[in-house]
Amino acid sequence: MTETKSLRVGMVGYAFMGAAHSHAWRTAPRFFDLPLAPQLTAVAGRDPERVAAAAAKLGWESTETDWRRLIQRDDIDLIDICAPGNLHAEIAIAALEAGKHVLCEKPLANSVSEAERMTAVADSAAARGVFSMCGFSYRRTPALSLAKRLVDSGALGEIRHVRAQYLQDWLSDANAPLTWRLDKAKSGSGSLGDIGAHIIDAAQWVTGQNVAGVSALLETFVKERPIAGDFVGLGGHGGTSGPRGPVTVDDAAIFSARFDGGAGSPGAIGVFEATRFALGRKNAMRLELNGSKASLAFDFEDMNSLWFYDSAQEPNAGFRRIQVTEPEHPYTGHWWPVGHGLGYEHAFTHQVVDLVEAIAAGKQPSPSFADALQVQRVLEAVEVSAADESRWTKVGGA
Amino acid sequence: MTETKSLRVGMVGYAFMGAAHSHAWRTAPRFFDLPLAPQLTAVAGRDPERVAAAAAKLGWESTETDWRRLIQRDDIDLIDICAPGNLHAEIAIAALEAGKHVLCEKPLANSVSEAERMTAVADSAAARGVFSMCGFSYRRTPALSLAKRLVDSGALGEIRHVRAQYLQDWLSDANAPLTWRLDKAKSGSGSLGDIGAHIIDAAQWVTGQNVAGVSALLETFVKERPIAGDFVGLGGHGGTSGPRGPVTVDDAAIFSARFDGGAGSPGAIGVFEATRFALGRKNAMRLELNGSKASLAFDFEDMNSLWFYDSAQEPNAGFRRIQVTEPEHPYTGHWWPVGHGLGYEHAFTHQVVDLVEAIAAGKQPSPSFADALQVQRVLEAVEVSAADESRWTKVGGA
Amino acid sequence: MTETKSLRVGMVGYAFMGAAHSHAWRTAPRFFDLPLAPQLTAVAGRDPERVAAAAAKLGWESTETDWRRLIQRDDIDLIDICAPGNLHAEIAIAALEAGKHVLCEKPLANSVSEAERMTAVADSAAARGVFSMCGFSYRRTPALSLAKRLVDSGALGEIRHVRAQYLQDWLSDANAPLTWRLDKAKSGSGSLGDIGAHIIDAAQWVTGQNVAGVSALLETFVKERPIAGDFVGLGGHGGTSGPRGPVTVDDAAIFSARFDGGAGSPGAIGVFEATRFALGRKNAMRLELNGSKASLAFDFEDMNSLWFYDSAQEPNAGFRRIQVTEPEHPYTGHWWPVGHGLGYEHAFTHQVVDLVEAIAAGKQPSPSFADALQVQRVLEAVEVSAADESRWTKVGGA
Amino acid sequence: MTETKSLRVGMVGYAFMGAAHSHAWRTAPRFFDLPLAPQLTAVAGRDPERVAAAAAKLGWESTETDWRRLIQRDDIDLIDICAPGNLHAEIAIAALEAGKHVLCEKPLANSVSEAERMTAVADSAAARGVFSMCGFSYRRTPALSLAKRLVDSGALGEIRHVRAQYLQDWLSDANAPLTWRLDKAKSGSGSLGDIGAHIIDAAQWVTGQNVAGVSALLETFVKERPIAGDFVGLGGHGGTSGPRGPVTVDDAAIFSARFDGGAGSPGAIGVFEATRFALGRKNAMRLELNGSKASLAFDFEDMNSLWFYDSAQEPNAGFRRIQVTEPEHPYTGHWWPVGHGLGYEHAFTHQVVDLVEAIAAGKQPSPSFADALQVQRVLEAVEVSAADESRWTKVGGA
Repeated sequence: MTETKSLRVGMVGYAFMGAAHSHAWRTAPRFFDLPLAPQLTAVAGRDPERVAAAAAKLGWESTETDWRRLIQRDDIDLIDICAPGNLHAEIAIAALEAGKHVLCEKPLANSVSEAERMTAVADSAAARGVFSMCGFSYRRTPALSLAKRLVDSGALGEIRHVRAQYLQDWLSDANAPLTWRLDKAKSGSGSLGDIGAHIIDAAQWVTGQNVAGVSALLETFVKERPIAGDFVGLGGHGGTSGPRGPVTVDDAAIFSARFDGGAGSPGAIGVFEATRFALGRKNAMRLELNGSKASLAFDFEDMNSLWFYDSAQEPNAGFRRIQVTEPEHPYTGHWWPVGHGLGYEHAFTHQVVDLVEAIAAGKQPSPSFADALQVQRVLEAVEVSAADESRWTKVGGA
Repeated sequence: MTETKSLRVGMVGYAFMGAAHSHAWRTAPRFFDLPLAPQLTAVAGRDPERVAAAAAKLGWESTETDWRRLIQRDDIDLIDICAPGNLHAEIAIAALEAGKHVLCEKPLANSVSEAERMTAVADSAAARGVFSMCGFSYRRTPALSLAKRLVDSGALGEIRHVRAQYLQDWLSDANAPLTWRLDKAKSGSGSLGDIGAHIIDAAQWVTGQNVAGVSALLETFVKERPIAGDFVGLGGHGGTSGPRGPVTVDDAAIFSARFDGGAGSPGAIGVFEATRFALGRKNAMRLELNGSKASLAFDFEDMNSLWFYDSAQEPNAGFRRIQVTEPEHPYTGHWWPVGHGLGYEHAFTHQVVDLVEAIAAGKQPSPSFADALQVQRVLEAVEVSAADESRWTKVGGA
Repeated sequence: MTETKSLRVGMVGYAFMGAAHSHAWRTAPRFFDLPLAPQLTAVAGRDPERVAAAAAKLGWESTETDWRRLIQRDDIDLIDICAPGNLHAEIAIAALEAGKHVLCEKPLANSVSEAERMTAVADSAAARGVFSMCGFSYRRTPALSLAKRLVDSGALGEIRHVRAQYLQDWLSDANAPLTWRLDKAKSGSGSLGDIGAHIIDAAQWVTGQNVAGVSALLETFVKERPIAGDFVGLGGHGGTSGPRGPVTVDDAAIFSARFDGGAGSPGAIGVFEATRFALGRKNAMRLELNGSKASLAFDFEDMNSLWFYDSAQEPNAGFRRIQVTEPEHPYTGHWWPVGHGLGYEHAFTHQVVDLVEAIAAGKQPSPSFADALQVQRVLEAVEVSAADESRWTKVGGA
Repeated sequence: MTETKSLRVGMVGYAFMGAAHSHAWRTAPRFFDLPLAPQLTAVAGRDPERVAAAAAKLGWESTETDWRRLIQRDDIDLIDICAPGNLHAEIAIAALEAGKHVLCEKPLANSVSEAERMTAVADSAAARGVFSMCGFSYRRTPALSLAKRLVDSGALGEIRHVRAQYLQDWLSDANAPLTWRLDKAKSGSGSLGDIGAHIIDAAQWVTGQNVAGVSALLETFVKERPIAGDFVGLGGHGGTSGPRGPVTVDDAAIFSARFDGGAGSPGAIGVFEATRFALGRKNAMRLELNGSKASLAFDFEDMNSLWFYDSAQEPNAGFRRIQVTEPEHPYTGHWWPVGHGLGYEHAFTHQVVDLVEAIAAGKQPSPSFADALQVQRVLEAVEVSAADESRWTKVGGA
């Protein structure tokens, strides 16, 4: 065990996502047998005191105040990008060109053109054995992995309906503060890119089909919000007085879609909805697929379950709640006995596991930047359609 | 009790809907104190033997083989139309002009122009004390009635999201037979008019807002089906061989919508989906509303419950399952003790109760033909948008 | 259809149960093809005005003020007993000896000795073609009938656990009035006989096993309650001042049990709980069975569903929610399309259907008085054990 | 941060519980600000190779092959006992007498007399500032902690019913192997001590009442099982051939209980059931309380939720699903945004947090050995009652 080669990680950013990634790097080797031993070598952030405190808290060995320094260091093999979306392209490209593997949080970028540049660089880096992955972590939630496995096995038959929702409510309060997530310059978009991107990726990945076209509607319910004096994370409560600034992103995104159908089968139709105003829905990341033979449904608010309907059992069929905690299920055998559920952060740990295994095997990890670019193209088509009277818009502009 | 004046009913049609209506006419006076005593005077159908059998089975005193005869009879006060949609306009107009009250099944008609003519006739009849009602029976499901009551009380605040689905699966089998419901000439449309109409009406009624514009997509998954040798009702299973004919209606309808907001408040945005291909969903007529203060959710597959989220209870808030069976709840005090649920047909009985009370009071029953015309206009806008690249389409063509 | 012979019914009592039975007699022939046509010939009650009003409301052709007169009448074939439990034995025995079939509400009697006498009379009457049935109506809830069918098919394997609960909350309020149901002289017992009897019958019937022994605990939480000035039905709310009287029955009953195992298999163990103090549980009549191959679970608060777990599907097994509304399911094909649920009173209609069919076929209906006597013996054993430090008590005192 | 004093831990055992505890020691300081910095100093196990491998995997700095050596070491402040129950007393007593704090897995011991000795030693150690805690980790599941908080606030009023179940199914297969958990000499008891102990502790802790008496039944469904060639953990699948040995513990335990009521209020009555044969129930650790004002219900299979019924909301009351993930909820503010659920192991991390804080503050941690002794007394009373015809048995033999 002492012989295992290291994988030395440098992380950029240390907020919500940084905490989740740090936990994953620390924890993965404790429950899984990894071919490379992750080392939490350095974390970068602009404020020296804060980054030092974060390093101590999260378990990083050293700090940098400029992400460029991180990339220059010889003792780092992989750059883990947890910074806001507007920085993704520059950091990822620099890292890949410097021969570092990259794990980049989603959405990949704030625009298709950035994502295209990143993908081009990632493709050529991969040819040199330098790999990249985009952090659509929900793929590694065991129940969604099992969903993918069931679809791939043919259990669903031809997929006809995709029903994807990501419902949150943390902006329902009109006095929630104006954070960077509500500033288009930093975040690229609102609910669409933040949470809509997750359900687009999940839907495409589980079905094995790409979204080919969309008709969309975007809405901003609360146009101005209190300016936050300082960084306030997800879910913070703002004040009711003081100056207000404009919300420049969408509060909610709705779109219908047609999928490309993949291998010889006709494409499904889909309905997508992403919002932070669905009062009472806290993290309802949901995916339902209706096939010609079976259906499945997932809701992150009951994240250890997958609901499955098999028409072969008719007339005594019914959606059954599979507790995705069996040893035979994806990832779960490495954790606890059946019925002892996992939590949100486990998907990040599984992401690290799969990434490390791919790197060690010299194989492209999934999702690739190209996969993430496809998500970005869907996001763009949604915005184009929404700005053009919801007119049907092909993804990729083809 | 023997003094109660009669309300003599003549019903056209005696299939699925006819059975439900007959049960309602028979049962309403047993559990409610009605101001007029319904009398099941006559039922009309083309085949003399069948209509006689139906009359005996369903409890009607006499029969006619031509609905026109029913209208001519002096001993009939109200015409109850349970025939296919393509006959609604002619029958309803003739009945109203003959001074008979009318209860007409939904959708009101197969086109906006028919519905407009019917509404005009209904309006002038109402001025003469002859009333009409459209059978959007789901309004009388106690849980949906309670939803309406909660919205009207202001409990939800400003409504932001409407999420309406009507998911069935009885056409998932590509060999289900080609019944009249799949023939556009008779049914007007497929899932859109049959079940989509219900969620449009429910959403508009509960929110108190009208749909102002839509962007839509229609899909027919199975283009040809076995020709049914004879009438086959809802849910029948067809053969796998023999001749096939074209399905001329939609299998699924998806649309996004904007509501007109009603009294001074901004309009909600909505997502609608109607399909008969959601394998495993049997009668999932669902409505969820997210407001600025509270949310509510209903699913007909658990029809005696209404889920309600009240933000005033935060941080210990949560969707609560109200069992809508209390004496204080709409209609339920006339039935059984709390927790003893009602079934599908009770909504029809409640419909009769409300209709009879309105007629006795000389008041317009709800939903009026005008309400149903508004639904019809939404259906039309959906079809126009779907035929025009999902482009945003105003309801009413304004 | 006009040739169908009549079955002329005389009903004793017209409160809650009388309304449910009347509805069933009226409705059964409308949805089912019955071999005998039920006729609502007469209803008996002590107060002439009230019984006349009830007859008009519920649809009975004539009235009597003494149940003995009902039994004397030549134009009555069946006596339907909806009176309180302390009258069951006398009426049922008189009716059977007069050659009338009997439908008797549960519990069969207020003591084992009464029930034994009734059963002896019923047995000898049956030999003469005069039949009797006890109204454990829940058996005819389609989901519980399907449960029975699944157990009988061997799908569960050897049954190990029975988990039966009947949870209500209408006595949680310490000021709910002192009705006849809280008076041991009239009701025999409290939650035990009223609702406990239902789960005992359901558990024995579905498993095909009898309870062989019990260890029990009874509790009365509220010892005195406001005296109701007049009859107050189930769920009434009493006053907070005025005189109070003693509650002489149990508020809650808990017992563990061993089943006799039936045909060659070892007996299951069971846990039973009946209470009217489970705040928030309105009519949670629940039954769960765990077998060696499969499990099933039912809750009346979601009465159209049966949850089924089949170990053959492991590792992707899970409890599935069967919507018991398919044409192939018990009773449901006579009603509405799939997913259109039934309500509480349908079980009474099904009870009438099965009773009429048994009488017409000259066969013993189920549950017989002997079946109900077995329930009574379990009730008695529970009371004996509870009075004797919960000591294990054999059912039947054997 | 570097100034924080260490708390040097030595752990005995490294199987299922050892992995959970190790994760907790590693993770607690990453998400919580602890007054002492846990150090994973040494782990003890009999097999030198295995313990070395476990230390490397789980993150321990050194190893011992005899737990006595661990206690002798000067560089260890706390002994964490994850060994089988028959070793608890000896290790805990030795450790406390050596001045080490102790965290001991549950059940505290295999008999009341052992538990009494441990408690006496713990009490005198506490007087010297040496503390002990028993690992009833479920208390630290946020939803159960919230339940406790609600009860303590008086929200439930007087508690009348306790309904506690712990349902698993991993022994349903009659060929599951004969592990140490099925050997009374090592495990003390079967489902009773293993999982029954959890619901006894949870019920007593949340209600603030002790179980005063019980009537019980124990059952062993499968009397012989395949002898496992080697250690097989929880949930392992055994062979179908080969030698079999006797199961000497209970497969299922059922008991009714009376609680002592605590401060001036009458005691609740309870029903408890623990089994490993409830096919389909994987880890259904459930607790429901019905009070005079409110009720609550928890099921570990949906561990991030607490269901709460508040009668003040009647007639629109209903059980509401509180997602226990708000910043205001116990522990959860240290983790992720709302709706991002936690998993099984988080309770162990919270246990470490509370233990470390108590030690640093010089206060007795909870649950104390005395609390665990009370659980042990209930277990004993259950066994006594079950062996004596289920006769009512006072807890503590008073």
